[in-house]
Amino acid sequence: MAASLTSRTLARPAFESAFEPPAYLRAMLDFEAALAAAEAAEGIIPEAAAAAIAKARAGVSFDVEALVAEAKRQGTLVVPFVKTLRAAVEAIAPEAARHLHFGSTTQDVLDTAMALCLKPCLDEADRALEAAIRSLARRARGHRATPMAGRTLMQPAVPITAGLKLARWATALAQDRERLADAAAAGLAVQFGGAVGALELLGPKGPAVRHRIALALGLADAPEWHSHRNNWLDLLDRIGLVVVTAGKIARDLSLLGQAEVGEMRDAPPQEGVGGSSAMPHKRNPVGCLHALAAAARMPGLLATVHLGAAQLEHERALGGWQAELVAVPEIAGALGSSLDFLDTIAAALVIDAGRMRANLAACGPAPASLDAVDELLGGLAPYLT
Amino acid sequence: MAASLTSRTLARPAFESAFEPPAYLRAMLDFEAALAAAEAAEGIIPEAAAAAIAKARAGVSFDVEALVAEAKRQGTLVVPFVKTLRAAVEAIAPEAARHLHFGSTTQDVLDTAMALCLKPCLDEADRALEAAIRSLARRARGHRATPMAGRTLMQPAVPITAGLKLARWATALAQDRERLADAAAAGLAVQFGGAVGALELLGPKGPAVRHRIALALGLADAPEWHSHRNNWLDLLDRIGLVVVTAGKIARDLSLLGQAEVGEMRDAPPQEGVGGSSAMPHKRNPVGCLHALAAAARMPGLLATVHLGAAQLEHERALGGWQAELVAVPEIAGALGSSLDFLDTIAAALVIDAGRMRANLAACGPAPASLDAVDELLGGLAPYLT
Amino acid sequence: MAASLTSRTLARPAFESAFEPPAYLRAMLDFEAALAAAEAAEGIIPEAAAAAIAKARAGVSFDVEALVAEAKRQGTLVVPFVKTLRAAVEAIAPEAARHLHFGSTTQDVLDTAMALCLKPCLDEADRALEAAIRSLARRARGHRATPMAGRTLMQPAVPITAGLKLARWATALAQDRERLADAAAAGLAVQFGGAVGALELLGPKGPAVRHRIALALGLADAPEWHSHRNNWLDLLDRIGLVVVTAGKIARDLSLLGQAEVGEMRDAPPQEGVGGSSAMPHKRNPVGCLHALAAAARMPGLLATVHLGAAQLEHERALGGWQAELVAVPEIAGALGSSLDFLDTIAAALVIDAGRMRANLAACGPAPASLDAVDELLGGLAPYLT
Amino acid sequence: MAASLTSRTLARPAFESAFEPPAYLRAMLDFEAALAAAEAAEGIIPEAAAAAIAKARAGVSFDVEALVAEAKRQGTLVVPFVKTLRAAVEAIAPEAARHLHFGSTTQDVLDTAMALCLKPCLDEADRALEAAIRSLARRARGHRATPMAGRTLMQPAVPITAGLKLARWATALAQDRERLADAAAAGLAVQFGGAVGALELLGPKGPAVRHRIALALGLADAPEWHSHRNNWLDLLDRIGLVVVTAGKIARDLSLLGQAEVGEMRDAPPQEGVGGSSAMPHKRNPVGCLHALAAAARMPGLLATVHLGAAQLEHERALGGWQAELVAVPEIAGALGSSLDFLDTIAAALVIDAGRMRANLAACGPAPASLDAVDELLGGLAPYLT
Repeated sequence: MAASLTSRTLARPAFESAFEPPAYLRAMLDFEAALAAAEAAEGIIPEAAAAAIAKARAGVSFDVEALVAEAKRQGTLVVPFVKTLRAAVEAIAPEAARHLHFGSTTQDVLDTAMALCLKPCLDEADRALEAAIRSLARRARGHRATPMAGRTLMQPAVPITAGLKLARWATALAQDRERLADAAAAGLAVQFGGAVGALELLGPKGPAVRHRIALALGLADAPEWHSHRNNWLDLLDRIGLVVVTAGKIARDLSLLGQAEVGEMRDAPPQEGVGGSSAMPHKRNPVGCLHALAAAARMPGLLATVHLGAAQLEHERALGGWQAELVAVPEIAGALGSSLDFLDTIAAALVIDAGRMRANLAACGPAPASLDAVDELLGGLAPYLT
Repeated sequence: MAASLTSRTLARPAFESAFEPPAYLRAMLDFEAALAAAEAAEGIIPEAAAAAIAKARAGVSFDVEALVAEAKRQGTLVVPFVKTLRAAVEAIAPEAARHLHFGSTTQDVLDTAMALCLKPCLDEADRALEAAIRSLARRARGHRATPMAGRTLMQPAVPITAGLKLARWATALAQDRERLADAAAAGLAVQFGGAVGALELLGPKGPAVRHRIALALGLADAPEWHSHRNNWLDLLDRIGLVVVTAGKIARDLSLLGQAEVGEMRDAPPQEGVGGSSAMPHKRNPVGCLHALAAAARMPGLLATVHLGAAQLEHERALGGWQAELVAVPEIAGALGSSLDFLDTIAAALVIDAGRMRANLAACGPAPASLDAVDELLGGLAPYLT
Repeated sequence: MAASLTSRTLARPAFESAFEPPAYLRAMLDFEAALAAAEAAEGIIPEAAAAAIAKARAGVSFDVEALVAEAKRQGTLVVPFVKTLRAAVEAIAPEAARHLHFGSTTQDVLDTAMALCLKPCLDEADRALEAAIRSLARRARGHRATPMAGRTLMQPAVPITAGLKLARWATALAQDRERLADAAAAGLAVQFGGAVGALELLGPKGPAVRHRIALALGLADAPEWHSHRNNWLDLLDRIGLVVVTAGKIARDLSLLGQAEVGEMRDAPPQEGVGGSSAMPHKRNPVGCLHALAAAARMPGLLATVHLGAAQLEHERALGGWQAELVAVPEIAGALGSSLDFLDTIAAALVIDAGRMRANLAACGPAPASLDAVDELLGGLAPYLT
Repeated sequence: MAASLTSRTLARPAFESAFEPPAYLRAMLDFEAALAAAEAAEGIIPEAAAAAIAKARAGVSFDVEALVAEAKRQGTLVVPFVKTLRAAVEAIAPEAARHLHFGSTTQDVLDTAMALCLKPCLDEADRALEAAIRSLARRARGHRATPMAGRTLMQPAVPITAGLKLARWATALAQDRERLADAAAAGLAVQFGGAVGALELLGPKGPAVRHRIALALGLADAPEWHSHRNNWLDLLDRIGLVVVTAGKIARDLSLLGQAEVGEMRDAPPQEGVGGSSAMPHKRNPVGCLHALAAAARMPGLLATVHLGAAQLEHERALGGWQAELVAVPEIAGALGSSLDFLDTIAAALVIDAGRMRANLAACGPAPASLDAVDELLGGLAPYLT
């Protein structure tokens, strides 16, 4: 689907453009150029052909509307894409054209391009997560002993400290960050298998070509994953964990920021943020809104990629994989919204120790223990330097 | 999220543009103009103000990028939208500006606009469904007695006739069509409730204003549905039923179109349709691809709107509703893909009675009964004229 | 899966037992007996055979563990079920045994039994919904003018009345109730199609037999729905709508029942309800808990039945349908939990007008309008007698 | 929900009983005994109390129906569970009773018990996965060069070898197995946090007590995870990956086992397996059925646990967590069904090289490459000893 206006208003701009036609076409071109260079280096195609392809790639331009229309007829974007690129190669060096895309297939291009587009999003996520964890860990240390009501099943329980709540948020995000990095290392892999995944046209040189492409593109090298998406799914699931944690934090903040509670807010009320068309005085928790909308979307998106991967027929799916190609940019979009929220609280989280104290009365008298928060702060030491 | 390139290649163009900024903004303007006209007719705002608003609406233009950026900050598209429109009204008639958007709120504009954008999609769905049902019913009548293997649990069972299979497809689509029309009649309703759904600024004239707006926009008139989305969800679920039926038919066709089976295809193999970048000889079932990808996406999308509606806090949700605003255009998109498939088979379904006969050997000897197909054909009579 | 202990603690007892082996086996037996009676009435099998089957049905008993083990090996419960029942018939009248299950198949028995087991749940739902609507409508009338804060995006907005909130809940439930009744009328249909849905062994008498079975079992008569589940899905979706509405009400109540808000509770705090193993003083909102857990489960369950129905191969599915057979009792279970909640609030909803007034200060000064609540109360008139 | 009869016919018996009342109550008792022993070892409660609790645990018995009914009223199983156990302790040593459950809370018991019940399932999964991988790897080596049609988008593509397909299945399962073991090491952790997760009654000895409990129960030691479920979710997601891979293999086998294709079957046709109540000659692929039904259920189940974790309020959820307690046994159940399938193919996978050759004609002439299969076989070396 094209961008609905409503979806655009929830998007993180860099994550939005990461999968739009210019970026995605660039990634597809990067794959074709890296493929040609690798095949030339391995003596499979002439160096001159690779050079012509590199040159064509720099100059080629696409009529996106025509591309989309033809992609739809063909059931694959790569047929019209290669046709256009081939024409550009032919214009430079006619004999080079038949060396373009050699040994490769639709899925190689599209999956590799998807990994390439996702990569900067994950890099940005890593940075945003680090900043948020640092900020929350510091606030946790600062409010290590600030008493506040612990609440279970939406009712007052016994006291905790604000530092404990903050340290938990930070700890969960730190775990998510590490897990995401691990999964990205395996899941952001080049896709290269040829028609049915056997690299049948490259013979014993297949793995060497693949390795070169991976190196050139900054992706992991791994056997093709046309029909088994588990490394990739693991990465998507772990994006889902970040969205879950951000959603949980936002849920807490939306509750703590109620007028009757008033203990924390995602950010101070500010002119021009969180207004209402009917009630200009309102200051809605827009940061929370983004994280909660993302959290509401993610379970369905993960369901889509799991079901698609499980009904994947033979050497390439009819339907399930194509649904994934739609879902992955949406999954990245939900991650982007979660990061928007984390950026907000990293910069502007409001903590009102006075209101916390005032609300404590509803809890039992048990004194809050500091041991639990200290244990977590110990684990967060790397973020507290 | 913006349009990913991959998502665009699965979209039905009219359904894609239905929710894009120009169409959605037009629908928002339609709401504001209808609101002003209705309030003027009820004597709530001056006729001159309504006229100025109508004039401003015709001339106003939006900087979409600025609108999106500001919508994101505000957590609502309507704040910057109304601001821009108000400036346009002010330029025409300064005193009219304060009558714009009177008594209304963000959700009124966005939900009504969503209904307005969905409406032509459902009209188109109705026509496409009718055409597909007519075509399948006719083919069913023609193949009423053509024997083919019945298959259960992916193994040969006893014979059926091709007509029975086709009549079942047609019957299910006919039921879906009727159900969709019923749900659209209730679900495509104007949204008009004001700040908290009470139309508190309009007093006893609220329902009359709402009725006028509904009439002007061609939507159903119903009390506001800010916080209870059940009429709307019922409509979305029933879109889901069309996608399920199309997916089931596509599943059957993808199985029947296997080389070793060869009994039906969504369309005849055709140069330039369903090619492969690695294997130019291939003719992939592109129609089925679209329906199956849509069917793979829909369960997750329906999960999103159901979960959003169930965690809807108080008089307007924080997160759940905004997730719905992203999901609805996607749901329409999946419907569009299903219709693309139905268009294809309505026009070009291939039936090979010879291959059917050849494959029958694996079934037991029971003769196919014609009573079941005749019962269904009887039900399809309105489509067989 | 067997009953996990944790799942049992969320179940409504009558809904739990509705699908347990005794009830489900009884329903399967009901089908076989009704089938035999109908076939005898149509002269397809001897009256004596039908009588023997009826007698065997009254006396047969099943070793559930053996049945389950054999069902698992066979991939169908009906093979060992029919074997056991046939032996019982043989013991009574040897020549009658071959008339048992004549013309029928696994799916006929299991789907019809599922509809039979679901039916009393829906009847009970109808009664519980009516009682809840009546209670809420009455409370709405009583609190028609009780001012309380309207809240949007989790922040104070402008005032509403408690009556408006209550009338909305009641109205949504009334719509859900009507819709559920409509869908049950179509969806609770007999399943009878034979091996591949063509009733191929019954010839022209098939529909008459089916009609008699439907009549005997109190189900709708409709052509078989082996491979198109849309009537049935529509019913399941509409169960989902009840769960959504109950979840939304429970969400509101869990927010209103917070210590700092204190405006409503699902029920008064009571010794022995909603305790905590760590904090005996706690009174958790157990009613809300049930509705919210159900609402959290339902989107995934509906996703399961939608995806199963869309990947339904040929004349009977391999996997998708069997997943549905697991999901339907769970869907009923979620409905049961929602009804438990509705029963609770129908009997015991606590409204604290004083706290409502005290919390109003955070809202703007706009007076609450009574027109909206009066419009809804008008619609609820049938429940206010 | 209680066990529906239909769900029981899909269950792996050991996985079914793993979460049933006897096993789950035993795990709850294990927690309480380990807690008391750890607290005694740390000098928090008297050794005599721990001994009495250990003795009571050996002798206590529960009236499951009464427990369930009271759990429902209380919204927690642990209140009546502790009450019953406390009475048993009191009968042995009255003064010991107040030391039972000291410093702990509902969620500690239920989450730890869930981890304890899941653990043997994962151990069994590890063994079954290893056996399946070994078997498939060996078959892959044996059919390293057996040509068969490669198929993409449900159409013939170019040849692969049967060994390549088998080696891919084995490789994906080997990755899933490793990933599952990693996630289990972190996710199968003791839950111990007390009322609000701060172990507020244990002071600085909290972590030492927790460590002892973990050691005694064979679980990982980690700070409480009441309100952040990411380690646990990661484990559930990775169970999902096994189900996806098994589902994909079953999808392939269900396609390859069609009468018209005939290249592989999950197992040889066998009297008494995969029969039909209408067509006794049928031999349905029951192994595939189990894996495909599990794969159809899993996306919805994962959606449930993700959405529950993201809307987790404060220090303990109202609804979201309780939904998870229902979903986890179902997730284990789906894993069990997948293992049933893997057991089947490990023991009995049928490969028909002759039919493969016969079907090859539809593919292009490209010779199958052996380099890809050899690369995968290299990676599978540990399973080929």
